[in-house]
Amino acid sequence: MAQQLLARIASPTDVRALPEADLPQLCEDLREDIISICGKVGGHLGASLGAVELIVALHRVFHSPTDAILFDVGHQTYAHKLLTGRRERMHTLRQAGGVAPFLDPRESPHDALLAGHSCTAVSAALGLLEGRRMLGHRGHVVAVLGDGGLTGGLTFEGLNNAGGSHLPLVVVLNDNQMSISANVGAIPSLLRTRGARDFFQGLGFTYLGPVDGHDLGALVHALREARASSRPVVVHALTLKGKGFPPAEADAQTRGHAMGPYEWRDGKLVRSRGGHRTYSEALAWALEEAMARDSRVVAVTPAMLEGSALNALKARFPDRVHDVGIAEQHAVTFCAGLAAAGARPVCCIYSTFLQRAYDQIIHDVCLPGLPVVFAVDRAGLVGADGATHQGTYDVASLRPLPGLALWAPVVGEDFAPMLATALQSSRPSVLRFPRGTLPALPPEVRVEEAPVRGARWLVRAERPELTLVTLGPLGLAALEAARNEPGWSVLDARGLSPLDEAALLEAASHGPVVVAEEGTVRGGLGSAVLELYAERGVHARVRVLGMPDTFMPHGDARVQRAELGLDAAGLRRAGLSLLERSEP
Amino acid sequence: MAQQLLARIASPTDVRALPEADLPQLCEDLREDIISICGKVGGHLGASLGAVELIVALHRVFHSPTDAILFDVGHQTYAHKLLTGRRERMHTLRQAGGVAPFLDPRESPHDALLAGHSCTAVSAALGLLEGRRMLGHRGHVVAVLGDGGLTGGLTFEGLNNAGGSHLPLVVVLNDNQMSISANVGAIPSLLRTRGARDFFQGLGFTYLGPVDGHDLGALVHALREARASSRPVVVHALTLKGKGFPPAEADAQTRGHAMGPYEWRDGKLVRSRGGHRTYSEALAWALEEAMARDSRVVAVTPAMLEGSALNALKARFPDRVHDVGIAEQHAVTFCAGLAAAGARPVCCIYSTFLQRAYDQIIHDVCLPGLPVVFAVDRAGLVGADGATHQGTYDVASLRPLPGLALWAPVVGEDFAPMLATALQSSRPSVLRFPRGTLPALPPEVRVEEAPVRGARWLVRAERPELTLVTLGPLGLAALEAARNEPGWSVLDARGLSPLDEAALLEAASHGPVVVAEEGTVRGGLGSAVLELYAERGVHARVRVLGMPDTFMPHGDARVQRAELGLDAAGLRRAGLSLLERSEP
Repeated sequence: MAQQLLARIASPTDVRALPEADLPQLCEDLREDIISICGKVGGHLGASLGAVELIVALHRVFHSPTDAILFDVGHQTYAHKLLTGRRERMHTLRQAGGVAPFLDPRESPHDALLAGHSCTAVSAALGLLEGRRMLGHRGHVVAVLGDGGLTGGLTFEGLNNAGGSHLPLVVVLNDNQMSISANVGAIPSLLRTRGARDFFQGLGFTYLGPVDGHDLGALVHALREARASSRPVVVHALTLKGKGFPPAEADAQTRGHAMGPYEWRDGKLVRSRGGHRTYSEALAWALEEAMARDSRVVAVTPAMLEGSALNALKARFPDRVHDVGIAEQHAVTFCAGLAAAGARPVCCIYSTFLQRAYDQIIHDVCLPGLPVVFAVDRAGLVGADGATHQGTYDVASLRPLPGLALWAPVVGEDFAPMLATALQSSRPSVLRFPRGTLPALPPEVRVEEAPVRGARWLVRAERPELTLVTLGPLGLAALEAARNEPGWSVLDARGLSPLDEAALLEAASHGPVVVAEEGTVRGGLGSAVLELYAERGVHARVRVLGMPDTFMPHGDARVQRAELGLDAAGLRRAGLSLLERSEP
Repeated sequence: MAQQLLARIASPTDVRALPEADLPQLCEDLREDIISICGKVGGHLGASLGAVELIVALHRVFHSPTDAILFDVGHQTYAHKLLTGRRERMHTLRQAGGVAPFLDPRESPHDALLAGHSCTAVSAALGLLEGRRMLGHRGHVVAVLGDGGLTGGLTFEGLNNAGGSHLPLVVVLNDNQMSISANVGAIPSLLRTRGARDFFQGLGFTYLGPVDGHDLGALVHALREARASSRPVVVHALTLKGKGFPPAEADAQTRGHAMGPYEWRDGKLVRSRGGHRTYSEALAWALEEAMARDSRVVAVTPAMLEGSALNALKARFPDRVHDVGIAEQHAVTFCAGLAAAGARPVCCIYSTFLQRAYDQIIHDVCLPGLPVVFAVDRAGLVGADGATHQGTYDVASLRPLPGLALWAPVVGEDFAPMLATALQSSRPSVLRFPRGTLPALPPEVRVEEAPVRGARWLVRAERPELTLVTLGPLGLAALEAARNEPGWSVLDARGLSPLDEAALLEAASHGPVVVAEEGTVRGGLGSAVLELYAERGVHARVRVLGMPDTFMPHGDARVQRAELGLDAAGLRRAGLSLLERSEP
């Protein structure tokens, strides 16, 4: 009777009530569910499979929500979701209105921390513990950390403060010996030795372990000891990412970190993912060309070799592709050092993680004016990964930085000339591009050679009455919106900072202007256009479309685009409304 | 013959040429110069005095600039400046057009790294070393780190990657047992024990030390050994902050971290600083009141107890004022945890250092909507500290964040009601205020009770022809600019997000609008106003004044304001020009 046990678990109280002998079956049920759910909707399979016993043990020993369990990132937490009343809805994982991809206190009182970016758990847990202490509230606080998060600076800052605080914080290190890719730096080897004990003791923690992270008895024993501690304590559990799912276990590179939907039949994995090439791959190809041509070019990624499609590049240029682990600040400042030496670093990073290195971009790259290229992936709507991963703020936060050029390719063919332009420049540059598959090259899009300069008219109406100004792939939606409007021009802004002022002033001279971009309306391309017009005393009716003043949840990016008017129909509506016309 | 030796040193080559017996005299000369210069122009006295022997030893052993010496922060580097050809100009330190407050490669080839924010040296040095290796260039690379910077996450990320790289990076730890205040967390105790060796060895470094940082012979010996190493090595030097200047040595709290100009007479310190109260103090008083009234209120600062004027507060509420050390990311996420527990954290942080925690503000505070209050000090022009410390980007980068309220007091009396408003809110808030002394309360400024809502008309013209819209203390300049203009109104925007749309629309209905703020023009208050007008289809002539699209160097903030038009005269000019009038 598969799932018989799991079906009876409505909350962690039920986990604690189970006889010990039933726990292995519960773990098996959890694994079956996780594999089946991820098969249907995709997700972070590997880490969640590896943490099954650990999560069961945590819920046996600690009493959530009186005891608060804070999971770092949330990759590892599908078992936690299944044990905390969300099993019936788990098939809606990562879909619009469905179970959140990571953890969210608004979804369950058992989610003590909103978690999507790694390395936050120790600091937040220490704050929660200190706040409870101060207000006289009771309950233990546990931070559950992946070993990948251990190389991130925020975790270290938290450990240093926690160790110095003498508060009874429990840190559980779920050590599967990988972050997303294999771990890097000195810490991974340290964790394999007796040095791990010295390291944590040096930081003021009692060290318990290492514990076999799939041995429930040993886990429960260690966690009970930790719960009884009156001072900071770390439980070091060794787990196997992807445990119980042969294809994930076998893929030593990523152990099934995040997978799209798949089919699992007769002991074989049948991938159902289409063969479409992505914007990430377009960047990787352009980068490979650039590296082949110029030996000074070097790629840096903070633990995103797979996500940024850099595996082939790493295989071809092992010494010139640096995965620095989950360490975004270091990635950027390391690039500054490379550039200062005369190399040409390309920092491949997601828009949402670039936020981690805002100061390093300002202080270490822009202020000295070093020629670092930021290849900013996942800019704009990301779909299933949700609010914690949307690429919303890069344009608005980077636009004010002096001397930082910002480019956005429309089609895959734009990458090579844009990257070449950035690499030829003596200043820092950003290339921002979305998650998703590459479109076909429409005849209207003229691909130029480097250096790319200024905006690009995709359509130039003979008797212009309105201009659609866009950044990035939205240019294609604008083309479609303007298809049957002989008076509508389409201007691909192509870059920001510097703005192509002449083209934008020309647009204003023709009539109203719609500005659309996949980024926050506040402070983005639209504001740049408005600032320009105000500065020049140009009166133009301008409508700005973009991401709204709320956090966008997870969902289907295509549907969300339509809701925000960031598609052909939306651009068309905006244009017609500015012209005070209605759809014929 | 005082200074005889130092006067003969034009570059590090001369340091290496000196007979060993002359070195103590050289150190004495350096100390005399540093004390005399800081007396005249103020500066980071303590750290620079403590590092004199270390810097002499570094220049004896390494051959700058072929060998690159990267100093973290730059607080400690006045001796380095004096030995690298800048002695004649050192009396211009921190003044407009004068020697830079920190290090800058544009000032000297011996400054390998632009350094103003701490914790960058290891990552940048590793990048420089890897870049040189890749391009076949020679030379050693040394990162000189204060122990305060050791608690910052970026340093840890750098150490982890350096230790894993096996490259012969030399890290010198200048351990004066303080950051700006006394250090916090577990690391300071660790450094006092044999655990220091284990810690660095665990991170993949050979550990040399501890070395007496004022014993030239021992320093030179250890640095020679480090220079000969073929793998990562750390030299741990123990120094005394303020060494050689009794008042600094005696002040165990800060050991003379940064001081304004002073007089040093007959062995006694004569402070020349005026008794004016500052915006920082106004925040601290308001915070003290709030903490006395509400036991949930708690203050958090990343190593800025003194700078943020929180010492008295710490003395009164030792358990409710948390100095977390140089760890801005942790400060913010720790606050998120405190808020989640039901406490009311106020995170006291400088605008320029808030950049370090941009992702934590977005992901850990705004996304879950936790009521953390950010007291953002040094927002706007900072004067002598220069480009690395200007508070330029807070408004533009924070404005797009959903649900984050932003307030700016004009006068000291505004702090209490604004802070109360923020603390009563269930959402996150920012109070931004400048470096500098408090103005007198002009009769036009009506101070209201909490909750503060919307904008405030400082002057409302009877027959309005133009409105000056300002944020923060610029309201006072606007009052002066409008003094003899019966048609000019002055609107203190008071907050952003949400914007007082009704008041701003009213302003537009009266005629042209000048928007002025001490923050970047791109994306700031001006853009917010332009976005509003575009959204509502309001046509208004708007002129935006603010900080330009370049990095502002160090200088006299008052002079810089005048240059940027951010004073009464500039606002007046902008108004007249919009009205197409000239000065009568």
